[in-house]
Amino acid sequence: MELKAISLANSASGVTTGNLFRALNPATGETLDPQFNSSTVEQVDAAANSASDAFATYRSQSSRERANFLRKIADGLDAATDELATRARQETALPAPRLQGEVKRASNQFRLFAEVLDEGSWVAARIDTALPDRKPMPRPDLRSMLHPLGPIAVFGASNFPIAFSVAGGDTASALAAGNPVVVKAHPAHPGASEIAGRIIGESVQACGLPAGVFSLLFDAGIEVGKALVQHPAIQAVGFTGSHAAGKALMNLAAARPQPIPCFAEMSSANPVFVLPGALRERSAQLAAGLFGSFTLGAGQFCTKPGLIFVPQQSETAPFLAELYRLTEGSAAFTLLTPGIATSYRKAVSIRQGHKDVQVQLAADAVGSCAASAALMEVDIDVLLKNSALSEEVFGPTTLLIRYGQREAMMQAAASLEGHLTATLLGTAEDLAANRDLIAILEQKAGRVIFNGFPTGVEVAHAMVHGGPYPATSDSRFTSVGSQAILRFVRPVCYQGFPESMLPEELRDANPLGIVRVLNGELTRDAVAG
Amino acid sequence: MELKAISLANSASGVTTGNLFRALNPATGETLDPQFNSSTVEQVDAAANSASDAFATYRSQSSRERANFLRKIADGLDAATDELATRARQETALPAPRLQGEVKRASNQFRLFAEVLDEGSWVAARIDTALPDRKPMPRPDLRSMLHPLGPIAVFGASNFPIAFSVAGGDTASALAAGNPVVVKAHPAHPGASEIAGRIIGESVQACGLPAGVFSLLFDAGIEVGKALVQHPAIQAVGFTGSHAAGKALMNLAAARPQPIPCFAEMSSANPVFVLPGALRERSAQLAAGLFGSFTLGAGQFCTKPGLIFVPQQSETAPFLAELYRLTEGSAAFTLLTPGIATSYRKAVSIRQGHKDVQVQLAADAVGSCAASAALMEVDIDVLLKNSALSEEVFGPTTLLIRYGQREAMMQAAASLEGHLTATLLGTAEDLAANRDLIAILEQKAGRVIFNGFPTGVEVAHAMVHGGPYPATSDSRFTSVGSQAILRFVRPVCYQGFPESMLPEELRDANPLGIVRVLNGELTRDAVAG
Repeated sequence: MELKAISLANSASGVTTGNLFRALNPATGETLDPQFNSSTVEQVDAAANSASDAFATYRSQSSRERANFLRKIADGLDAATDELATRARQETALPAPRLQGEVKRASNQFRLFAEVLDEGSWVAARIDTALPDRKPMPRPDLRSMLHPLGPIAVFGASNFPIAFSVAGGDTASALAAGNPVVVKAHPAHPGASEIAGRIIGESVQACGLPAGVFSLLFDAGIEVGKALVQHPAIQAVGFTGSHAAGKALMNLAAARPQPIPCFAEMSSANPVFVLPGALRERSAQLAAGLFGSFTLGAGQFCTKPGLIFVPQQSETAPFLAELYRLTEGSAAFTLLTPGIATSYRKAVSIRQGHKDVQVQLAADAVGSCAASAALMEVDIDVLLKNSALSEEVFGPTTLLIRYGQREAMMQAAASLEGHLTATLLGTAEDLAANRDLIAILEQKAGRVIFNGFPTGVEVAHAMVHGGPYPATSDSRFTSVGSQAILRFVRPVCYQGFPESMLPEELRDANPLGIVRVLNGELTRDAVAG
Repeated sequence: MELKAISLANSASGVTTGNLFRALNPATGETLDPQFNSSTVEQVDAAANSASDAFATYRSQSSRERANFLRKIADGLDAATDELATRARQETALPAPRLQGEVKRASNQFRLFAEVLDEGSWVAARIDTALPDRKPMPRPDLRSMLHPLGPIAVFGASNFPIAFSVAGGDTASALAAGNPVVVKAHPAHPGASEIAGRIIGESVQACGLPAGVFSLLFDAGIEVGKALVQHPAIQAVGFTGSHAAGKALMNLAAARPQPIPCFAEMSSANPVFVLPGALRERSAQLAAGLFGSFTLGAGQFCTKPGLIFVPQQSETAPFLAELYRLTEGSAAFTLLTPGIATSYRKAVSIRQGHKDVQVQLAADAVGSCAASAALMEVDIDVLLKNSALSEEVFGPTTLLIRYGQREAMMQAAASLEGHLTATLLGTAEDLAANRDLIAILEQKAGRVIFNGFPTGVEVAHAMVHGGPYPATSDSRFTSVGSQAILRFVRPVCYQGFPESMLPEELRDANPLGIVRVLNGELTRDAVAG
């Protein structure tokens, strides 16, 4: 696919008056062709308005039509796997198999939502039948179901250039619910963004949908994103990225004349608790697993384990020694952007300057995006007195926290902020002895993991990729898995409507055969005539 | 019950250092005994911290235990019906049968949530079983369900001193989900608030729960509410009241170091569309129904019809004449507070001063809380040019909007802001001819009503008492009906947990017999062993 390097917005194609920028190959430092055009504020306006115009048509599509559209996108992504992975590799330096896996993850995400639409019960149909003889007042017939919110602004993330970007879970869930989408591409991978965006755009066209159902905007800076979130046509925001950017978008969304929901997945240090039994049984295996997890994708996972609590016992020294050995021997990593690399080096250097933090850096890394793995270690008392040490550092580093008394570990757990995940590595006995710890972690994280590593995030029905602030802006939602659709819908109740005027989902006969709440009971039954 | 007139906060009982205030009988202008003590900031702190302390115990109660607690409260409310209604009548001047009905509504609300807990499926249990042989990577076992958020701040509304106040739907839904509650009583009915609060407090005690599960705070001003929303222990806010107060709370909740969800139900003019066929068939009946609805409870319903669109046809003049006749003949109303009465008179007077608005006031009303019904009428062009005319006016008034061309009505519908309800009064043919109007109203309101009046809000499973901003702060939720519980819960996922460590809701055998999403299918089936 030849890259056109301009916004894919309905009425704005061909306009190229914005600032110019290029992607950078982080592995070589070379800039990549072509030169991309930042969108103008007029293009933002055109994209948002065209999304708004397309909403009337798109929201009235049947579930089957929307499912077909999602499958069309999935097929397009699969067919472009090599092209997407090749360009993304140039723009991110992530390994080819990982990027090919990301394309599969993205297409599977669209297919999962197509299945959710086919199954149909996700609309939360509820029917309370009329009680005309009730005293003192009759009860009217009430029926409710979920409806789409309207045009959604989606911000692509830097660290998953395909599966959390233009064709990521935010776009898939927003489209599945019946919302048009306007994506602001991440400037670090504009080429992969354009390829994914054009696949979605072609699917829009192939399905005979209005072009405004999907638009893609580019920007080297922050003006386009800002204008997009402030645009009156936009009804919600989906974002994955840094805390600073996420918080800025939350503030913009809240400060609008009409405040809108902003789901921002932002920052998480993903605490891991190594428990005594496991450390006794398999310390080398734990060290290898943790090293693999904190350096996976050069440590640029939202779910990277950044805090590892380790009890002081006879196996502690060999366990730590193994982690040091693995870190020392690790080759240099390439981070996604010079900005990320600079932040990483700065965070490591601040911790190096801290007298109570022990830092081991792997061999020197050369290049503007290069980074050495860094293993850090503190005593738990130092962490308890320096809460800044528990903040997320994006990149191949983690902080080991030694504790002698279980009480101190429990205190540290209780003072954690919100995280996407919390992990327990232990034996069955360890787990049973830590019910009080689990009760705390349930309140601190969206996902509590036993004997796994947090860096795997399944696209599944039960997945929660969310968590209390600052992990996300709203702990009541997830951005991964089928429940991600709930961010972009609202219930609407029909009172006293005749059968023929109701949506199919709410009709007496239950023509779609979905599960509904009928007078308080979950059932596929028709309403008795 | 002898009123103690001090905050019902766990560790703060007996402290009486705040400002003093009394309730006022709006019908007589007399102040009522006893003198109430505004809570101090220290009492706010004590209540919030004690809620936080109680959370660990309360969240671990079984559904059955929580359902028993809710039924205990319901029984207590029912037993105190006369006492509650009598005191509320003194404080609000609302009619006795209405207030007795409100107690029943409040107790039914607690019973509805007890039924929801008994049924159990509300926790949205989801299970994706492990796929150990999946390639390229195995899938871990993932199970998720909803958990309570933590201590909730609830603000009692002025206009429903029982059913939307201390023992209202916010408190019932927050407690049902497993959250401790701290209520800030509305200063216009502190006595009814205390009676309801003590019934809840006694139920807490009778069920052996920690006292911090429920606290009640008083304040004549805004300091207590402000401190409560800003308190770090508070995890969400439920509010019903004015737009100004709701927006202030939204801003406070968003500006916290840890932003929290704030569900504010604020302002709605509840547009009504009188359609041509209905106007031909039953104009007198429509006029009587609309008059009854806009003056019900002295026009102090969140769902009062405040905008009535009327087509110009031969029945229009008699329809309007009947509405004028009813308004002219109506006795004076007593509003809830002098402040509400002043705002009402001011809003009416501004519209009287508008050269294009025709205003008919009923007979003079005497007294600081007295108000005359006011019927206003404009041509649709005036409304389209003066959006301020579509704002809610709290009290016994409504605005009739005449239109000649259907196009103008559709334009006005499309430019509506968010409302709690939108109503169509028509024949079956009218409705079928207005699918485009319905498609607009679905986007503007939480509930679309056919041939009913919006002032009835059923406590039911399918009810949506919500809607786009400014009707509420977040259109994705409802504050009435069983779905109100969703405001105060968040999903938590357990990955790889052994059976014995999982909550009952997620265990293989499905011991509670609830409906769950098992590998994408809604079922009561156990997980195959």
